[in-house]
Order: sequence, then C-alpha cells, then structure tokens
Amino acid sequence: MPLSRQRLPQRPPEPGLRQKLYDIIFEAEDRWGRAFDIALLIAILGSIAIVAMETLPSVRTDAEQVRWLVRMELALAILFGIEYGLRVYCCRYPLRYIFSFWGVIDLISFLPSLLVGLGSSKQNAFVIVRSLRLLRVFRILKLWRLMSEADVLGRTIWRSRGKIVVFLSVVMVAITISGTLMYHVENRPNPDGSPSTSGFTSIPQSMYWAIITMTTVGYGDVVPTTVAGKLISAVLILLGYSLIIVPTGFVSAEFSEARREQRIFEDSLPEAPPRFAKVSCPGCQAGKHLVPAIYCHRCGTRILAP
Amino acid sequence: MPLSRQRLPQRPPEPGLRQKLYDIIFEAEDRWGRAFDIALLIAILGSIAIVAMETLPSVRTDAEQVRWLVRMELALAILFGIEYGLRVYCCRYPLRYIFSFWGVIDLISFLPSLLVGLGSSKQNAFVIVRSLRLLRVFRILKLWRLMSEADVLGRTIWRSRGKIVVFLSVVMVAITISGTLMYHVENRPNPDGSPSTSGFTSIPQSMYWAIITMTTVGYGDVVPTTVAGKLISAVLILLGYSLIIVPTGFVSAEFSEARREQRIFEDSLPEAPPRFAKVSCPGCQAGKHLVPAIYCHRCGTRILAP
Amino acid sequence: MPLSRQRLPQRPPEPGLRQKLYDIIFEAEDRWGRAFDIALLIAILGSIAIVAMETLPSVRTDAEQVRWLVRMELALAILFGIEYGLRVYCCRYPLRYIFSFWGVIDLISFLPSLLVGLGSSKQNAFVIVRSLRLLRVFRILKLWRLMSEADVLGRTIWRSRGKIVVFLSVVMVAITISGTLMYHVENRPNPDGSPSTSGFTSIPQSMYWAIITMTTVGYGDVVPTTVAGKLISAVLILLGYSLIIVPTGFVSAEFSEARREQRIFEDSLPEAPPRFAKVSCPGCQAGKHLVPAIYCHRCGTRILAP
Amino acid sequence: MPLSRQRLPQRPPEPGLRQKLYDIIFEAEDRWGRAFDIALLIAILGSIAIVAMETLPSVRTDAEQVRWLVRMELALAILFGIEYGLRVYCCRYPLRYIFSFWGVIDLISFLPSLLVGLGSSKQNAFVIVRSLRLLRVFRILKLWRLMSEADVLGRTIWRSRGKIVVFLSVVMVAITISGTLMYHVENRPNPDGSPSTSGFTSIPQSMYWAIITMTTVGYGDVVPTTVAGKLISAVLILLGYSLIIVPTGFVSAEFSEARREQRIFEDSLPEAPPRFAKVSCPGCQAGKHLVPAIYCHRCGTRILAP
Repeated sequence: MPLSRQRLPQRPPEPGLRQKLYDIIFEAEDRWGRAFDIALLIAILGSIAIVAMETLPSVRTDAEQVRWLVRMELALAILFGIEYGLRVYCCRYPLRYIFSFWGVIDLISFLPSLLVGLGSSKQNAFVIVRSLRLLRVFRILKLWRLMSEADVLGRTIWRSRGKIVVFLSVVMVAITISGTLMYHVENRPNPDGSPSTSGFTSIPQSMYWAIITMTTVGYGDVVPTTVAGKLISAVLILLGYSLIIVPTGFVSAEFSEARREQRIFEDSLPEAPPRFAKVSCPGCQAGKHLVPAIYCHRCGTRILAP
Repeated sequence: MPLSRQRLPQRPPEPGLRQKLYDIIFEAEDRWGRAFDIALLIAILGSIAIVAMETLPSVRTDAEQVRWLVRMELALAILFGIEYGLRVYCCRYPLRYIFSFWGVIDLISFLPSLLVGLGSSKQNAFVIVRSLRLLRVFRILKLWRLMSEADVLGRTIWRSRGKIVVFLSVVMVAITISGTLMYHVENRPNPDGSPSTSGFTSIPQSMYWAIITMTTVGYGDVVPTTVAGKLISAVLILLGYSLIIVPTGFVSAEFSEARREQRIFEDSLPEAPPRFAKVSCPGCQAGKHLVPAIYCHRCGTRILAP
Repeated sequence: MPLSRQRLPQRPPEPGLRQKLYDIIFEAEDRWGRAFDIALLIAILGSIAIVAMETLPSVRTDAEQVRWLVRMELALAILFGIEYGLRVYCCRYPLRYIFSFWGVIDLISFLPSLLVGLGSSKQNAFVIVRSLRLLRVFRILKLWRLMSEADVLGRTIWRSRGKIVVFLSVVMVAITISGTLMYHVENRPNPDGSPSTSGFTSIPQSMYWAIITMTTVGYGDVVPTTVAGKLISAVLILLGYSLIIVPTGFVSAEFSEARREQRIFEDSLPEAPPRFAKVSCPGCQAGKHLVPAIYCHRCGTRILAP
Repeated sequence: MPLSRQRLPQRPPEPGLRQKLYDIIFEAEDRWGRAFDIALLIAILGSIAIVAMETLPSVRTDAEQVRWLVRMELALAILFGIEYGLRVYCCRYPLRYIFSFWGVIDLISFLPSLLVGLGSSKQNAFVIVRSLRLLRVFRILKLWRLMSEADVLGRTIWRSRGKIVVFLSVVMVAITISGTLMYHVENRPNPDGSPSTSGFTSIPQSMYWAIITMTTVGYGDVVPTTVAGKLISAVLILLGYSLIIVPTGFVSAEFSEARREQRIFEDSLPEAPPRFAKVSCPGCQAGKHLVPAIYCHRCGTRILAP
C-alpha cells in the first residue's frame, strides 16, 4: 500500500546503519520492521495493563505486587526511552521529529514513569504522576500511525463534517428541549405537598437523562415516573431512534462515493489489472477467472449457473 | 456555498448602512457577519446555561447566586432585544420578518425574560415565566439557519417520508401487539392468589416497556419476570433489532442517490473542474494530481504502486 | 402511484353505486376515499386506546368509567361491523374477500366486542374476551394496506432473506455459546461454600442475558459480577456491536440496487421527464432548473458558484 | 447456487451407494439431501435445548426429569455418531474429512455425551463433562456450512478487515482513555474523608463501564454519580454514538461494491437474462415485464403512470 508512505515525518536519511534502523522503526515494510511494530504494540498494551492493574483494590493492598508492577513499569519505560533515542538518532532531521505530534507523544509516554522510577518514591510524587499517567494512554495512539486505511476513514469523515455538525446541533437542540420539558413535567410536588422524589432534580440532570436516553444507552438511574413523563419520553425515544439513521445514511453515501472514486482512479490507469470474478471454480477450486468467463480456464467446469 | 442564499426571508434592502447591517446580521459571508454569528451562538448557549443552572438544587437555595443569574439573564435578554430591533430595522419589509417563523421565535426568545426582569420579581410571576421559558429553548433553533448542509439533509429525509411513515406504522403495530401480549402474559395473579407484583400493570405501561425495549434503550425499570414473558420479549427484541436495519438501509440509498445527482449536476457544467485523485505524492507531499496521472507532476515519483 | 392498485383483492365490480362505494372503501384515490381512510384510521386508533385504558388500575376500579368505555367499545364495534358489511357488499366476488387475509382480520377485529356487548356482561365472559381482544390489535394492520411504499420495503427485505437467515443463525450461535459460557463462569459456588447469588441461574436465563446484551438493550436485571464474567461479556459486547453492522450493510446495498433499478426503469421510458437540478434560484427562488443550467431561466442569476 | 459447491471438503467418490449417500449428506441439492439437512438441524437444536434444560433449577432437583433428559441426550449422541460414521464412509478421502475443521467439530459434538452415557453415571464424571459440554455448542456451527450466502458475507467483511482493525483500535483507545479518566474523576474520597462509594473501583472496572456505555448497552450497574463524571460521560456517549456510524458506512459501501461487481459479472455473460421491471400489471396482475415496457404485454393496461 503505497499510501502509507505519506505519513513519513521526513525523507529517509542516507543509506547505511541509520537507513536500516529507519526502515525498521518507521517503515514496517519488511520482516524486521513488522516484527518491531508488533513487539512495540505488545509493549504498549502491557504498559497500559500494568497501570490498570495497579488500581485494582486487591492489588493495591499487597505491597509485594505493587513493587513488582512498579519494576515492570520502569523496565518498560526504559525500553520506550531507548526506542525514543533510536527514533531521534535515525531521523535525518531529528528536531522535526521531536517537535512533531508523534514525537511529543512518544516522549510523554515514557518520561513520567522514568522520573518517578529513578527519583524518590514519595507519596506526593505519585499523586502528580497519577494525573500525568493519563497522558500515557496516548501511547496506544501510535497504533493509528501503523495503518494506512485510517487515511480513507479520516478523509471520508472530513468530507461529511458539515452534515455531522448539523446533525450534532439537531441532537443538542433535541436534548435541550427534552431536558427542559422533562424537568418541568417530572419535577412537581406530590399531591400531598411533599417534594418530588423524581430523579429529574435539575435541568442539567434532565439533559443528562436525555443524552443517556436518546443514544439508547438507558442506564435506568434516572427514569420517568409520571404518566405524562412516560408519554413524552416515549415520543422522544422514537424520535431519537429515527435520528441515528440520518448520519449513518450520509456517511454511508460518502463512503460509497469514496469507493467509487478509488475504482475510477484504478480503472483509469493504463496498466489497469484485468478484473477478476469473485468466484472459484466448483470443480477444481481455481480462482482468478476473468470477468466475462463462463467456464473454468483450468478444468472447463461451468462457473456460473445457466 | 451559494445555496445558503435560499434561506433569505426577503431580498436585501438598498445599499448603505442598512445594507451593511443586513449583510452582517443575515448573511454571514464576510468576516463581520461570521463574527456576529459566533457571538450570537455563544450568547444563546450562555442564556440556556443560565436557565439550566437556576434549577440546580445547590444554586436555588443560594439567594446571592440566584440574583446574579437573574441579572445576567436580563442583560442577555436586553442584548437579544437590541438584535431583534436591528433585524427589524435592516429588513426592507420588516413586517414580513416579524411574522415569519424565525421572527416570532426571535421575539419569544427574549420577551418573557425582559418583562420579568423589568417588572416585579414576585414569586407568582416566576411560576408563569417558568413555563414560558420552555419556549426560550427554541432560541437555539437559530443554529439551524446558519448551515446550508441542512438543506441536503432535509430534502433527503423528505424524499424518504413515505417509507418512514410505513416504518413507523410497523413499529407502532409491533409496540401495540407486544405491549398487549406482555400485559396478558406477565400480569396474572401469583399461584398463591396474591396479585401480581410485575411491572406490567396496564397496557399503556406495557407499551411504554415495548418502546423502551424495541429501541434498545432498556432502562430496566419494567422487566419481564416470568419464563413466558422472557421468551416473548427475547423474540420481540430480536425482531426490533432487525427492524432498525430497514430505515437505515433506505435512507442510505436515498443519500447515495442525492450524492449521485449532485455529482451528475456538477459534471454536466461546461466549466466542470478537473477531477483530482485523492492522493498526495509520497516523494514531495504535493497534492492535486489529475485522475489519470501515474507520476507526480512535481518530482516525478510514482504515485500509484505498479 | 400506480403500484397501489396491485393490492386489490379482486377486480372492481360493475359501475353504479357499488362501484362508487368500492372506489371509496378500497381505492383511496379521490377526496372521499381518502376521507374514509383517515376516519377509519382514527376509529382503529380510538378502539385500541379504549382497550388500553380499560386496563389502567385507576380506571378498572371506577365502575362508571368502565361502563362508558364498554359503551364506546360497542359503538366502535358496530361501526366496524357496518364497514365490514359494505366491504362484502361492494366486492364483485364477496367470498374471495371474506376468506382473504384482510377479510378475516376485518371480521375478527369487531366480532368479539360485538358478541360481548350484545350478550351478558358476566365476569366470566370478560375473561374469555380478554384473550380474544389480543387479536383485535391486528386491526391496526389495516394501515399496512394503505401504503404502497410498503411494496418496495417488502420486496427489498425479501431479496435479502438469504443473508438475513445467515445473520440470524450467526447471532443464535453467538447467543448459545455466550449463554453457556457465562453460565459456567458466573454460576459457581462462593469461596465460603454458599451457593452463587449470581443472576445466571440456568443456561436459558444466561441466553436471555446474552440476547438482552448483544442487542444493546441492557436492562441490568442480570449482570456479570465476577472478573472473568465481566471480561467475557466485554468481548461478547464488542463482537455483538460489530455484528449489527453487517446486516445494515447488505440491506443498504440492496436498497441502493432497488433505487438504481427504479431509476433505470424510469430513464428507459420514451416520455421520461427532463431531470431538474435540486436547487432554487438565489435571486428569485424559482425552482425547476434543467440539469445543465448555469443561470436562472427566469431572472438570469447564476445558480451555481463559478 | 453453484457457489455452495466450493465448500466441499474433497471431490465426490465413485458412483453407486456411496455416491448417493454423499449427495444426501454433503450436497443438499435434491429432496433427500434437503430433508437430511433439516432433520439434522432439528436434532442439533434439540440437543442444545436438552443441555440448556438440564441447568434449569426446577429440573435439576427432579431426578425423574434428569434421567429422561440424560436418556434423550444419549439417543441423540448415538444418532450423531451414526451420522459421523456415514460421513467418514462416503468420503473418498476419509482422513481428509476427519482432520478437517468440520470433521473435528462433528466428532467433538457427540463423543463426550456418548462416553458419559456408556460409562458410569458418577457425579464426578458429570463435572468433567459439564465443561466438555461447552464444546458441544459448536455443533450448531454446522448451520453455517449449509448456506452459501455466508460466502458473500464473509468475503465482504474480509475486504473491510483493514478498516475494521482501525475502527476497533480507535474504540479500544477511546475505552482506555475514558476508563482511566472516569476512574480518576469518580473515585475520589468524599468531602468528609470517607472512601468513595462510586462503582468505579479500579481502571479495569472503569474500562468495563466504558465498554458497556459506548456500545449503548447501559446496564446501569456502574453509573457516574458526580457532576464532573456525568459531564464527561455525556461527551463520551455522544462520541461513541457517532463512532458506530463509521463502520456501518464503510461496510455498506463495500456491500454496494460487491453487489455492483455481481451485477457486472452477470451482465457480461452472453446469455444474460433480460431484465424485468419489478412491477406487476395493475389490470391483470401479470409480472415479468421487460424493462422498457410501458403497457402490459397481456392486457394492454398502462404499467407506469404517465
């Protein structure tokens, strides 16, 4: 897939060891490059799993386990540090990499753990790191870079951005109106004068309910209790149910159009490859039948029913 | 996007200050017009946030905060009043604007707050306004006018209206049948003679359950408890799950058709622009390659894999 | 829409009063026919509302209200009886109508109420009718006949039936496997030997959970409580979330194909109407511009941006 | 549908009884083959129902019912054993079948029940089998083989695999980020110093919440309780709600493309059948009108409105 080259932060450097390293780390087109990417992916997932496990109640109370997890975290941070160093080394213009979006994420993803691991293990430092660790989750975003399919996805969504903004505006208006309406309908004192025990305690809370409901999540922590409230929410839900169809429709149309353009571009090339039917021969399992073929080119079995 | 002009309530007035104001307030095509629209949008969102915050339990008990919110509300209402006056002033046919759909909404969106703010702050008046405030939410509907993409959305949905009516009828029939069925299945006295404790207390309540379930919201406040009820609801849910596919399908098809018509219309123009491939050169990042191009027009790198 | 004629149960009878009645009752193409259909629709919805209201706890205890509802029910049943008689009268081949699908539904929809209303009002009779009333819900199915769009919907779904069967099979297999798996994972005795308090009490119950979960309804009445159970259900949910995409995709493709065939059929007609662009003139709001038009045919304003 | 032949594990053997058996068991193209497949399907569903029923609390305590179910299970296992023997017998290369994917599943689906049924009925043996029974659920996977439509589905999904991987990666990143964020926002001690009673007890638990929420399942067992938590989850839900649109879009486009290729392949055949309009005559109900037809070929009624 030649499109993947687009994502290069800069041109490759001169041939030699650096060129070889560059190919492995940035390109992922030969055996070693792919192996490196998979190892990196496993390391990233591992480091996320470690952070997640440290918060488990059963782990937090066990000092021994915490110590082991901190050590593994440190080891992974060192590995990511080495990877970062190699990336800087093998780029022709290291500064361009360092200050690029991915360069900053690569740095942030290992620096906090390294600083905590090498420095003191005071409780205060941990609190600061805990919030910095949030950013470490971005590490997995590297995955994104590895796949060129993301280009098509991103471009198609970008072309639908106008309609998406309109759609989200309509959803926001619907949420605001229904939240306000439900607050007024549900939040009235009981006939005996005692205050309402409904979950719709304020307009923001009612708007939270509207979001939970219109997206069909439906936790059930805030639920209409009056007859009028149930009637209104039934109408709102049916509307919300219909709303989701609209963006699905225009994004689908945009993807179809992207698919069509891709086909036209491919067909317009002089050395356009012959089109093959997507069937294999029922007699000999051979594939690669040209589109107007009726009989198998290898064994003569009829491919298509008369 | 020239389509946005369609939404003008009337032709622009004679040149001069009024024309200038008209361009800023109604057109949003130059820098000042866009700035005005964004400021208006922020003001609308702010006024909605104020109304929402006034209902928060922690705010309602604090007289100081309520007073501040009422003041900000009044300030925004005055601003909206000025905006309304300017709109009336710069139209050539003010009456046409005043009695148009948006004119009425513009008026309603600020009048109640202004009346309450200038008049007495009696508790009774507040109760009346509270229901009028509901209408103020319509203010955000102005957003709709700002975006021409809404035209395409609206037209496509309009062309699918026949199928949408059929679909909603089928959904209504399914809700009625399943609501009635579940009421009879779930709402029978226990074996020991005591009345049923099931949530399916009446057919309307069961229909509410059917809506909550078939749209996959699933609050869990009404839930089948008998074996037969669970069996029937499992079947209903699988049916409902399949139903949602149908409208998605035909709305998608309609959007594809709209997309196709748009393309045909553009292609049929004499000065139709050349079609560009959606790739940039892997060598020099140049874009704008004509569709049959194989090599980059700037650096000669091959754009497409052989 | 000429397709609506397809639904006729038989050919129209000879001209005269019967023909006139036939046109009103079966055709819905002139003013009277449409008025009849709307009146019938309101009557059907009213009769369903009456049955639903009779089951409300607050209504059931009030003898006066029950008596009124029974009377209205009887009145509507008599009206439906008259309608049935007219349908039989104005058909050329009444027996064909009587034994057709809609004929049977028309009869069942009013007969039970009529029998109960004319007969004794004993409590026992009511119990029998209560189950028969279920069938009366079918009355609303008449709606279906009124809309010709249903043809396109039905045909498209019919053409996708093979894929739908495969899809539902995959869903059933997924439900069976995940139900069995979750039963074994969640339903084990606690470490202290007491029996499990999990909601996964049996494989059918676990399959009910799997249906509620994979369709994203998510009541929350049965919920995984063990770590392993949560892990497995997270995987299942992500799979189920991906599954719903597949049928949406192929039904959309089938609808696009149906839309395309319709267009080809229309384009192939000699008197095919000229294609109009879907824009109106920004200058004079005139519509109906031929597809290659660049300037408005009425005021000369440019329709399309250069 | 000739594509179904593709699934043959090997070429059919020499003519005679084995050939006849082979046709019935593997082919399902004549009356006997189809009857065999339906009988097999019913037997598979029956055996799954038996295993499911054995776990019902009301059944487990009734020794008589358990004995009957075990006997029926044994009978079905023997039937499946016979079927397996016939499959091995009528294949030309039995080893190829035995070690194929379906061969192994066929064997596993009946062997455990048979061993338990013939051996001792000790309680211990039952515990082992209970876990083996899990695998017996695979039996229903045979259904898959019976339908050729699955080929198209499988191939289309396979062609979208790149985009699906990207999409699932984005979903995983979103789940990780939102899980970590919500853990830090929700899981802080109360103002009075007591530990938080929120359901977000750890990052894995928060990620479980994120999966349940973003897929719109929404059990409600873990729910945000703080204002900040509700705000963040509202944003996350709206994002998740938008995310589901993307894969639906590109899978739809891929299906449209597959549909188009199928049409082109069919159209390119010399003996391509004439295309018929999808209408029947309003006058005489005749179908099969050629695409450019305007009047019915049987009764002369106009088919299309002027």
